Amino acid sequence: MFNRPLHGGNIAWAAALVGCSPDAILDFSASINPLGPPESVIAAIKSHLPKLTAYPDPDYHQLRLSLSEVHQVPPDWILPGNGSAELLTWAGWDLSVLERTFLITPAFSDYWRALKAFNASVVELPLLSAGGEAIGLEFLDWKKLTSSSLNNGLLLNNPHNPTGKLFCKETIEPLLERFALVVVDEAFMDFLPPNREQSLIPLVREFPNLVILRSLTKFYSLPGLRLGYAIAHPDRLKRWQTRRDPWPVNVLAAAAAAAAINDRVFQQQTWNWLQVSGIKLFQGLADLPGLKPYESAVNFLLVKSAVSSCLLQEKLLQESQILIRDCLSFPELGDRYFRIAIRSPTDNQRLIAGLAKILS
Amino acid sequence: MFNRPLHGGNIAWAAALVGCSPDAILDFSASINPLGPPESVIAAIKSHLPKLTAYPDPDYHQLRLSLSEVHQVPPDWILPGNGSAELLTWAGWDLSVLERTFLITPAFSDYWRALKAFNASVVELPLLSAGGEAIGLEFLDWKKLTSSSLNNGLLLNNPHNPTGKLFCKETIEPLLERFALVVVDEAFMDFLPPNREQSLIPLVREFPNLVILRSLTKFYSLPGLRLGYAIAHPDRLKRWQTRRDPWPVNVLAAAAAAAAINDRVFQQQTWNWLQVSGIKLFQGLADLPGLKPYESAVNFLLVKSAVSSCLLQEKLLQESQILIRDCLSFPELGDRYFRIAIRSPTDNQRLIAGLAKILS
Repeated sequence: MFNRPLHGGNIAWAAALVGCSPDAILDFSASINPLGPPESVIAAIKSHLPKLTAYPDPDYHQLRLSLSEVHQVPPDWILPGNGSAELLTWAGWDLSVLERTFLITPAFSDYWRALKAFNASVVELPLLSAGGEAIGLEFLDWKKLTSSSLNNGLLLNNPHNPTGKLFCKETIEPLLERFALVVVDEAFMDFLPPNREQSLIPLVREFPNLVILRSLTKFYSLPGLRLGYAIAHPDRLKRWQTRRDPWPVNVLAAAAAAAAINDRVFQQQTWNWLQVSGIKLFQGLADLPGLKPYESAVNFLLVKSAVSSCLLQEKLLQESQILIRDCLSFPELGDRYFRIAIRSPTDNQRLIAGLAKILS
Repeated sequence: MFNRPLHGGNIAWAAALVGCSPDAILDFSASINPLGPPESVIAAIKSHLPKLTAYPDPDYHQLRLSLSEVHQVPPDWILPGNGSAELLTWAGWDLSVLERTFLITPAFSDYWRALKAFNASVVELPLLSAGGEAIGLEFLDWKKLTSSSLNNGLLLNNPHNPTGKLFCKETIEPLLERFALVVVDEAFMDFLPPNREQSLIPLVREFPNLVILRSLTKFYSLPGLRLGYAIAHPDRLKRWQTRRDPWPVNVLAAAAAAAAINDRVFQQQTWNWLQVSGIKLFQGLADLPGLKPYESAVNFLLVKSAVSSCLLQEKLLQESQILIRDCLSFPELGDRYFRIAIRSPTDNQRLIAGLAKILS
């Protein structure tokens, strides 16, 4: 028996199962942009190697300035972190002091970690209907849910992982009046081009009870680097800084982040690639018997499967050395769903061919 | 007016004061090994750049194995962290649930942050006598201090910063019977060669109430990288992991750490350099009027000064572009102490000459 890894991207496990080198596995399990990391980022890291002999600036002034320009928010409304997961810890603390936290499910397993760490009282709000349809936030009865108290928190991600569903800004905005604290994880928002994105960042200065978490992990293909940031009221971010150590982001990650967010060429390339590849992969999956992909705004697709996704995962590995993401870490989904990253046209074609061989 | 930085090594502040480039400042304020970083570390970072596209292994299995071999402790007794400061956060949490935490002072300012974050009740134990003499731990009346309850914590560092005093293992060992939790920050222990070091690591398997924090920052000149580790009972470390995010150490830092701790050549070079340079700098300072350096086991010297250390700091900057560490972040010390790192013979000579010009 082998232990299935709980978080996506565990190539080592897959390679051991197949008995091949980890490099031989085609990884569809981690929702990482296949175009990255940008060359500008690698160059920035290399050029900052001599800076390792000095402590990072605890204010991360340069990085905050860069982020401030990109997001049109003053620097002290931005707090860099060691991946958005580190910032989630402090958001979890803030949520835990409230009466209850409503959590949109299925949810990223680390949300549970951050909420449980501080003994938050959690109420799950399923996003999928009994029939497995992804419903919108606007169909939840918020009035009833929050009728007993206004001292509640809400934690959601937008776009939503693993469904890929994008919530309109206008759907979330009214919720800011109903909750003492709303934390929106926008880890995948960068995949939306400027004319389609639905970030709540423009609202943050109006709502001190709004926290937005962003990540460089997925869009810039840097899961190994650990760089995210929070955008929220400066008082809250200063409070978070009294809890954590002064230098959570190393100098290489800080330099890489500043380079990444200013790489307009890479951003445009990603949007161009995703628009074409996403539609084609969706159609390819929809054409296969027993598979139903969900419409997705971002770089991954949730797929409902008539056959066990664990079985499918193992067969794909053994027959095609392709790793897909089973959804066992999302207990609501169980064994009838899997998630795949959208990759290059050639890789996507290999996936479709591999699935076709099993399902046809 | 300018804001004095509270943590050492703020070259930017010094350069602005003098009106020169930060590179022109000779930095004696950060207690960093001037021989580093080792070439092996830079090579390890460069070779791991392609690994940025994968998440770090949340178990940090390889790194733990390497540390396990060096310290002769099983891998699950070791927890890598984003600098020992990150691990201090979780140690602070554990200390805060105890009745009181005794803190040896003067103490690194981040100890206060970690204890205050979780509302620990702190009792200060001054290490300096009224006359400014550094006294040993054995002279504190531990029996009396812990008479009312055994549910107390103790946080100290060994060797002690900023005095440079090394406590014998045998002095600390009896305290493990008196406290519910003893956290020993051994951030500077690597500077002692194997035949002189006094680490408590060999005791950790006997005492589940012992936590040892180690850092790669100072010895390997990597403050910008953020890499430390805790050695303690696996149950405690597993509990810490439920609080923090799964990937606090990025892949470059993890690779660098494994390379650093196995670089025997660099370690030996450092011990050789320090033995010669330390004695010479101590003597040079002791010969200057109004200065009294404390005997130090490590790579920095605390110096008592007849004139204001802030004044001395400013004059040294303006006249010699040398930055020393005032001790304002150690409130017990105030304006009559400063701390300097031990650097190369040439640099140390420049410091002595600069001080001589002001004091003679």
